[in-house]
Amino acid sequence: MKAVDLNCDLGESFGAYKLGRDEEILKYVTSANIACGFHAGDPATMRKTVKLALDHGVAIGAHPGLQDLIGFGRRDMDISPEEAYDLVVYQLGALWGFVRAEGAKLEHVKAHGSLYNMAVRSAELAEAIAEAVYKVDPSLILFGLAGSKLIAAGRKIGLRTASEVFSDRTYQSDGTLTSRRLPDSVIKEDDRSLAQVIRMVNEGKVLTQQQVDIEIQADTICVHGDGVRAVEFASKIKSSLTEAGIKVRRIGETLAAANE
Amino acid sequence: MKAVDLNCDLGESFGAYKLGRDEEILKYVTSANIACGFHAGDPATMRKTVKLALDHGVAIGAHPGLQDLIGFGRRDMDISPEEAYDLVVYQLGALWGFVRAEGAKLEHVKAHGSLYNMAVRSAELAEAIAEAVYKVDPSLILFGLAGSKLIAAGRKIGLRTASEVFSDRTYQSDGTLTSRRLPDSVIKEDDRSLAQVIRMVNEGKVLTQQQVDIEIQADTICVHGDGVRAVEFASKIKSSLTEAGIKVRRIGETLAAANE
Amino acid sequence: MKAVDLNCDLGESFGAYKLGRDEEILKYVTSANIACGFHAGDPATMRKTVKLALDHGVAIGAHPGLQDLIGFGRRDMDISPEEAYDLVVYQLGALWGFVRAEGAKLEHVKAHGSLYNMAVRSAELAEAIAEAVYKVDPSLILFGLAGSKLIAAGRKIGLRTASEVFSDRTYQSDGTLTSRRLPDSVIKEDDRSLAQVIRMVNEGKVLTQQQVDIEIQADTICVHGDGVRAVEFASKIKSSLTEAGIKVRRIGETLAAANE
Amino acid sequence: MKAVDLNCDLGESFGAYKLGRDEEILKYVTSANIACGFHAGDPATMRKTVKLALDHGVAIGAHPGLQDLIGFGRRDMDISPEEAYDLVVYQLGALWGFVRAEGAKLEHVKAHGSLYNMAVRSAELAEAIAEAVYKVDPSLILFGLAGSKLIAAGRKIGLRTASEVFSDRTYQSDGTLTSRRLPDSVIKEDDRSLAQVIRMVNEGKVLTQQQVDIEIQADTICVHGDGVRAVEFASKIKSSLTEAGIKVRRIGETLAAANE
Repeated sequence: MKAVDLNCDLGESFGAYKLGRDEEILKYVTSANIACGFHAGDPATMRKTVKLALDHGVAIGAHPGLQDLIGFGRRDMDISPEEAYDLVVYQLGALWGFVRAEGAKLEHVKAHGSLYNMAVRSAELAEAIAEAVYKVDPSLILFGLAGSKLIAAGRKIGLRTASEVFSDRTYQSDGTLTSRRLPDSVIKEDDRSLAQVIRMVNEGKVLTQQQVDIEIQADTICVHGDGVRAVEFASKIKSSLTEAGIKVRRIGETLAAANE
Repeated sequence: MKAVDLNCDLGESFGAYKLGRDEEILKYVTSANIACGFHAGDPATMRKTVKLALDHGVAIGAHPGLQDLIGFGRRDMDISPEEAYDLVVYQLGALWGFVRAEGAKLEHVKAHGSLYNMAVRSAELAEAIAEAVYKVDPSLILFGLAGSKLIAAGRKIGLRTASEVFSDRTYQSDGTLTSRRLPDSVIKEDDRSLAQVIRMVNEGKVLTQQQVDIEIQADTICVHGDGVRAVEFASKIKSSLTEAGIKVRRIGETLAAANE
Repeated sequence: MKAVDLNCDLGESFGAYKLGRDEEILKYVTSANIACGFHAGDPATMRKTVKLALDHGVAIGAHPGLQDLIGFGRRDMDISPEEAYDLVVYQLGALWGFVRAEGAKLEHVKAHGSLYNMAVRSAELAEAIAEAVYKVDPSLILFGLAGSKLIAAGRKIGLRTASEVFSDRTYQSDGTLTSRRLPDSVIKEDDRSLAQVIRMVNEGKVLTQQQVDIEIQADTICVHGDGVRAVEFASKIKSSLTEAGIKVRRIGETLAAANE
Repeated sequence: MKAVDLNCDLGESFGAYKLGRDEEILKYVTSANIACGFHAGDPATMRKTVKLALDHGVAIGAHPGLQDLIGFGRRDMDISPEEAYDLVVYQLGALWGFVRAEGAKLEHVKAHGSLYNMAVRSAELAEAIAEAVYKVDPSLILFGLAGSKLIAAGRKIGLRTASEVFSDRTYQSDGTLTSRRLPDSVIKEDDRSLAQVIRMVNEGKVLTQQQVDIEIQADTICVHGDGVRAVEFASKIKSSLTEAGIKVRRIGETLAAANE
């Protein structure tokens, strides 16, 4: 029986500013990527979100980003690999503090926004991120775009990895996502989204924009946490996967099962 | 044989801004309180300072402060106990990341500036800080002004504590430091400073401004890390203590020895 | 015929974070207090809000706050009068940039949150704020709580002032607002709110919690910009004032008319 | 008689962190580019630096940078032209506040670090910066690398411009500076530096690394404000220029003289 993880970015509120529908989305996902205060999130939000994830039995991960609150970590910055290493160690540690205070365990790390995207292409940044995660805790699972340099860097250093796929984005034949600046980069029809993601999990394949099938590893699916239809779609994707005979569970359980 | 710890605030540089003479001062102290990025410090500085402290065999502690970089964490802010808890957990965790990445151990926590001072007076803030430290790691040693509510809160929750004394400040009969706004708050003569601190360690007493002796517990002495004479005085205080037959060693070792 | 100004805090979004219903509320108010990036707001939001206020013919004012984004400028900080002066000059100038870029005029300044509240009580802070405003532009109108030290400081230095009253807060006999920590500090019934504010404008009096009438000057009324009922209440207060024969117009026009 | 301006980045301290030898360097330069709080500087430093520049009769300019204090504005960020516009208006306005409070006049704008460098190459960013300056005050002088898109954008929109040259950097045949990553990018010999800069002013020419003479307009020379030899070199460059029969004066005076 196939299994897949559903992950979502959570804890992105900041001070008086509320963002996302965390409580509702937590009913459907299996992994929570919690913002760590650089691109979003703050200490109080981190504490609350860790507790909320625990209440829902959802795996807790750190979601470190660039130090660019005003740009929500979505503007590429020319940082050095050493700077990437440092900001991942810092944020991962900060979230670990809250996780540890609740007597819980940090399970995974998923870089946010530009940090994630830059590590798709740059082996140097990818290796710096992987090293940061490994040195803080080699048992952590590193999330990254399926087929990216980040996944490669994670494997190389000896981390367990989770290859992430997107239900609502189209793919290029080199395995990258179609740039949002190009037409048809986002899949707007739910049926097409769900069909794509089920096929990725069941067959390990996706049809690219060039009408070519490529292989893709789908360990975890990115589910969006804000937007008017976020909760509705999260519910839909979970039930569709279940109906398709796919088990929705934490990546950690799947990896542990594979190891037995 | 009496023993005492010498602690110093370190890692207070930020980006292009350099502060303190960390490498030199590390030759003389036994505990380093490393800034965690809120009132001072940044991820790169934290990484470098952790390594530097390890190179010198100095115990590593977190030095969390208020989120007020522009005011260096020295302006009182009306924060709630919950906010104090959150900012300690966050910063302590962040530093833990760097300590863990180097395969080392975090030994203690000393609050910075206004956070330290507010916790001298406020039992609520003191308890929130102590709880934060305890929940992240109950084996950490909590530093605080000798006789303060912070030391009381640490003991109450079950933490080991280190009562801190100042060589260059005068005391009031209630055990508090003379406010810097009052005359003779700072001791400028080295001899008087050294005599006060040696007596505090050896006899557990200090003569207050009111010309009354009070009891004081001196587990650790605060040594300043910047200023033109900082390194010179650090050297002097260490040799004076040694000459007076006092062992200068990490508080952790002293506490462990007491437990045997 | 009596006249009064209706002011509202606007432009409090930050980056990806949206706050307030600025477009809707601008239909009812006559003065916009635009956040300047310290407690809330950012450069893009300032530009957009200035344009929006101009589109609605609403007077533009700066709304400087403490440098505490995470606390939304609502946590008292122990700043010096010089620091208050500096942060007002900085923020006022920053907003002036956007106003000037649109060929418009900055009309007033209203301090935000803790900065506003601390200047009610502290003559030193009040005078520093008034001096900052005066030195940048002596033709600006300084907003402040009716009867506060801020209004006194503004008058003393030679600024025009606007005494602000609250429709939804109860008053103490010394002219201050009842602390939110005390019972009955907030008036929840619309009718009571509207009656209080109409009486303040028409008669210059308010019945305090001690059941005593005191004199109060009502130049401008604070209207809230967020909350589910904000827009509805803004509309209601405007129509109630009009029905009571009170002209709702910018304070600048009222002051100019008085000068003729 | 030829004339040239000497400009220097000043006011780059932040809170407890001191940077640069502003008071000493102000004796030699004619234009001060004052940091505005994003990449460096803070409100108190801005106030003090404005006063200091006035005391020395040095022209005051705004020195806006990217919102990256930790990277000192030296890391390229993928900002949009609109974001560049917004951050220039904001910072320029903020400094204007302090200039106005002292009854003085803002003379020029020089972008800092990555913002400056990105506007050398990107016409879109250059035009956004030029528009920001023009809309706030069309009488301001826009500084930019000689021959850059920023100077072109300034002229296009109708601003007066000052073409900046560097005494201690080598040039490429396309008029750009040799990248710091390449050998011989920095001129370390004072004599060679001074000869290059005198020739640029007197003849309007510079010998590039390709051993080809190119034309270059030298309105203002960048003088560094920190580093152990900064003050000494500033003194040397000023006396060398004077000895070579070149008048060292504010660019504003030169432009006014040219207009007569």
